[in-house]
Amino acid sequence: MSELPELSYALDTFYFLICGVLVMWMAAGFSMLEAGLVRSKNTAEILTKNIALFAIACTMYLLVGYYLMYSSDAGGFLPSLGALIGSENGVEAVLAGGDGAPYYSMRSDFFFQVVFVATAMSIVSGAVAERMKLWAFLAFAVVMTGFIYPVSGYWTWGGGWLAEVGYSDYAGSGIVHLAGAAAALAGVMVLGPRKGKYGKDGSIYAIPGANLPLATLGTFILWMGWFGFNGGSELKMSDVSSANNVAQVFVNTNAAAAGGVIAALILAKMWFRKADLTMALNGALAGLVAITADPLSPSALGSVFIGAAGGLLVVIAIVALDKLKLDDPVGAISVHGVVGIWGVLAVPLTNSGASFGPQIIGILGIFFWVFLASLIVWFILKAVMGIRVTEEEEYEGVDLTECGLEAYPEFSASKK
Amino acid sequence: MSELPELSYALDTFYFLICGVLVMWMAAGFSMLEAGLVRSKNTAEILTKNIALFAIACTMYLLVGYYLMYSSDAGGFLPSLGALIGSENGVEAVLAGGDGAPYYSMRSDFFFQVVFVATAMSIVSGAVAERMKLWAFLAFAVVMTGFIYPVSGYWTWGGGWLAEVGYSDYAGSGIVHLAGAAAALAGVMVLGPRKGKYGKDGSIYAIPGANLPLATLGTFILWMGWFGFNGGSELKMSDVSSANNVAQVFVNTNAAAAGGVIAALILAKMWFRKADLTMALNGALAGLVAITADPLSPSALGSVFIGAAGGLLVVIAIVALDKLKLDDPVGAISVHGVVGIWGVLAVPLTNSGASFGPQIIGILGIFFWVFLASLIVWFILKAVMGIRVTEEEEYEGVDLTECGLEAYPEFSASKK
Amino acid sequence: MSELPELSYALDTFYFLICGVLVMWMAAGFSMLEAGLVRSKNTAEILTKNIALFAIACTMYLLVGYYLMYSSDAGGFLPSLGALIGSENGVEAVLAGGDGAPYYSMRSDFFFQVVFVATAMSIVSGAVAERMKLWAFLAFAVVMTGFIYPVSGYWTWGGGWLAEVGYSDYAGSGIVHLAGAAAALAGVMVLGPRKGKYGKDGSIYAIPGANLPLATLGTFILWMGWFGFNGGSELKMSDVSSANNVAQVFVNTNAAAAGGVIAALILAKMWFRKADLTMALNGALAGLVAITADPLSPSALGSVFIGAAGGLLVVIAIVALDKLKLDDPVGAISVHGVVGIWGVLAVPLTNSGASFGPQIIGILGIFFWVFLASLIVWFILKAVMGIRVTEEEEYEGVDLTECGLEAYPEFSASKK
Repeated sequence: MSELPELSYALDTFYFLICGVLVMWMAAGFSMLEAGLVRSKNTAEILTKNIALFAIACTMYLLVGYYLMYSSDAGGFLPSLGALIGSENGVEAVLAGGDGAPYYSMRSDFFFQVVFVATAMSIVSGAVAERMKLWAFLAFAVVMTGFIYPVSGYWTWGGGWLAEVGYSDYAGSGIVHLAGAAAALAGVMVLGPRKGKYGKDGSIYAIPGANLPLATLGTFILWMGWFGFNGGSELKMSDVSSANNVAQVFVNTNAAAAGGVIAALILAKMWFRKADLTMALNGALAGLVAITADPLSPSALGSVFIGAAGGLLVVIAIVALDKLKLDDPVGAISVHGVVGIWGVLAVPLTNSGASFGPQIIGILGIFFWVFLASLIVWFILKAVMGIRVTEEEEYEGVDLTECGLEAYPEFSASKK
Repeated sequence: MSELPELSYALDTFYFLICGVLVMWMAAGFSMLEAGLVRSKNTAEILTKNIALFAIACTMYLLVGYYLMYSSDAGGFLPSLGALIGSENGVEAVLAGGDGAPYYSMRSDFFFQVVFVATAMSIVSGAVAERMKLWAFLAFAVVMTGFIYPVSGYWTWGGGWLAEVGYSDYAGSGIVHLAGAAAALAGVMVLGPRKGKYGKDGSIYAIPGANLPLATLGTFILWMGWFGFNGGSELKMSDVSSANNVAQVFVNTNAAAAGGVIAALILAKMWFRKADLTMALNGALAGLVAITADPLSPSALGSVFIGAAGGLLVVIAIVALDKLKLDDPVGAISVHGVVGIWGVLAVPLTNSGASFGPQIIGILGIFFWVFLASLIVWFILKAVMGIRVTEEEEYEGVDLTECGLEAYPEFSASKK
Repeated sequence: MSELPELSYALDTFYFLICGVLVMWMAAGFSMLEAGLVRSKNTAEILTKNIALFAIACTMYLLVGYYLMYSSDAGGFLPSLGALIGSENGVEAVLAGGDGAPYYSMRSDFFFQVVFVATAMSIVSGAVAERMKLWAFLAFAVVMTGFIYPVSGYWTWGGGWLAEVGYSDYAGSGIVHLAGAAAALAGVMVLGPRKGKYGKDGSIYAIPGANLPLATLGTFILWMGWFGFNGGSELKMSDVSSANNVAQVFVNTNAAAAGGVIAALILAKMWFRKADLTMALNGALAGLVAITADPLSPSALGSVFIGAAGGLLVVIAIVALDKLKLDDPVGAISVHGVVGIWGVLAVPLTNSGASFGPQIIGILGIFFWVFLASLIVWFILKAVMGIRVTEEEEYEGVDLTECGLEAYPEFSASKK
């Protein structure tokens, strides 16, 4: 019969694994969201990018990323070099107890962390959709998931300099979402907008997504997966205080998403005179991103308001980015970048252990690191292999040229 | 190291949260089911309704509903007024033990309950699809989730008069499903059928759903989510007897859904000469609704039969409602109302603690309360803002007029 | 307050149930995958088959299959006859402890096992798609899930002769996947290819699937569900060693899928000059099937390679089967059969407890039993009721003739 510490270890390990499965499921959410918001002629390609980036993220993080992020010195800026996961905990160490005793499986920790990397990378694919070369994108994914993300991840969660400064980011509004958005922004700037998006006279043309039920499904999947994303970030379940915290995180995560939907839908109705479904979806995601930096400290009602502010912000940001001619087909930079910053800044409002200074340092540090490193990588890729498909390929749709097939061969009556 | 009661508390809390996530996921199931069963010109609007009603349900239940339902006096008819969730349990109270000691997080209980409210409301959206104004529907959602559902929910699960009478409804065939269907029926009666559904000569025209893979996905999502819906309603996991019960509930829930599919498919084949997919889907849902009032007492084989009876009933009910010119595009009233009643009545067949009298009182009490309260709200909304779109809007499709976009802009060759 | 053994029992039961829910979810994955890979005129029918086969599998396994598989004598070839699940464990037996004491609910075990049967059967539906009669298929499902699968399942997991021989198959690369593929192969051979698939001059025509986002969603669902499939097959969670093992299984399962995607995508690009999305999807599934026979012994990096080999193999197998004019619309025989064999053979590479002899005996035993038994059943069905739709029905699409409705009534401009 197993002892109490063994059972506790098993429960915390199980909790990590189930939360990890929920985060892995977010990969399907991003895939469906992005596939629904692009045109049918570019749908198979965005799906290919999404499943391939997930595979690359899992492999690169196993090879180097996890080691960089979690095995480096405390307080540092540069991570140590190394590879692969460490060894598993023995039963003796668990039973010995004490403050340093392991209380969950190392492998379950890796599993939970690896799906986070994929999330950060999934943010990029939507923003550069409908015009970026498939293999250039996948090459970027190798660098982003194996190196860029793990470095800034190490700064906070691996105990690096941002952790020492006092930057507070519970589940990663900055570390994951802002990081993904910064890489996406660099890509969008190097890549330029889709043909036909911005007229020479300054007019902006809407390019509607081909399949909104799919986009809605993607949003619901992400909403569901976020319970693992935030809920697992407590990192412990097995005592009353941790269990209460995890429950609070679930309630707040849900409340913030709800607030985001309501606020975005009402603002869209007032501003555009229509209950724009895509804004409601982005509102949900904005609420989720906003609460991610601290889903524990606010009350449930406070979370509704933090999410609602995210929902308002995302609608404004999507309009503003279009004015700036930053063409982001799915609104990823607005949702994860602009609202990610709001999430990080909102932490000190309810968490007395955080203050605005370190939060701003964290935002600047993460943003500039990921943005500049990504910019360099995008430029190298542009020089080496090119990152943009030809005009003719863009007109024909990248499904046929990149993937050699169509997403909906029987349905699409005409090229749009 | 945490003590045994702490670990037990953590497991039960985790169990609540995971079951809650599964129930939350049912919101995606209803969305996909309904989006698949309406025409493409009304798809974006039904999706908007579904994500918005979930957000409204979560917010209203947080603001007032949960308090009404669970903080009122025992045995009463009217709930107390009040708002927000109560305070969380302290570790001392848990460790103190004894009969009244808390054994799971209050927040996890709220999380589990809040997703139930959304389920009840999701039932309504399908029945009134393709012709109801978006904002009138959302206004109804505010009242239904904040007030109407919590009142009758309090009667049983909050310890009100139906609990005292001996009404037995394990996971809510009556409290959730019949309640949702009663509200839907009132809406359908006030709203009238879709244009073109019933001819002047009494003929009934089928209006096929635009996307049956989506409807099938929705059904599978609901089937999956139902394990949380029923499985979590045991409310405890942490001892042998509870664990056995939860396992029995999972097995029976699955068995009933299977029975529903088989019975509905065979009846459809015999009656209509075709293996009608939509009837198989409704059969699965009917099996699930039927077993919800008591997924614990029957044997697995008994559950197959209870579900199969639900599957037969739903096919008959869908045909009968059409004869009565009650136009329910997705069959929600048949699935959740007619079969919900069957589920409640089936309890005494296997559960010796229940008897038909209280079950009938429960059906009547819940039905008339929700139906009449809803009817009044629908009439007020009709008078104040109107609940039905214009004939021209209905012809054009509510996606363009309500949401300003199309669900499948590249696919729908012609208006149907 | 519950004792420690009770809590342990509850955790293991909960672990079984949650893993079972994930496996049940794979039914939705197969449904979406297959619905996405067939033509729109055959989509509703394949959906009907999928939900009906799941219902049949659950019912038949309850009636006879589970008893055959797990209640028969050790070491035998023929299972005992009998029916229904056994009785549940009492609390006394749990508290008594000792080696033979039950440590999880019998019902949770049944729940976990029943969803496996459905998986095996789901493999068949894709391979025979677009031309097999619906009711002949469902009749086969009755025999397969009630008898054929339980017999060979008993040989290993029920303690029959293959277990005694030393055949090692952790979660069922052979017992589930190869078994499903062998039944499918027999069906495909009796049925013949779809009209228009193979020209008289030996040319092979691609018949593209109608909805690749759906197929991608299906793949992600299966990937997610596989964590339950493999993760639950450790059969225990509640001590440090078991928890570590389960975590290792999750990590390896994910790593193998990632390896499969990368390898298949690169091979497709090199071979066909295109990043074929359907090959990436099949690569993911191949990685998952490959690791299923032993997701515990390899390192994470080793799992990437085992999965990658599966990914290469599946691309080659799909091409080779087409050369052999074995028409498998979704590639099920390649994914589950060819790669299933690879998975079984890979076990001795990392697991010192396994050796090639018993693995080969297992492959031959399972394949020939299921293949020959299925062949007989298919021939009987062909003689009794016919298994293939008429040429005209095949041309029109089986949705209208079998189900009396269309999957996408508004989208499909023309019959293809």
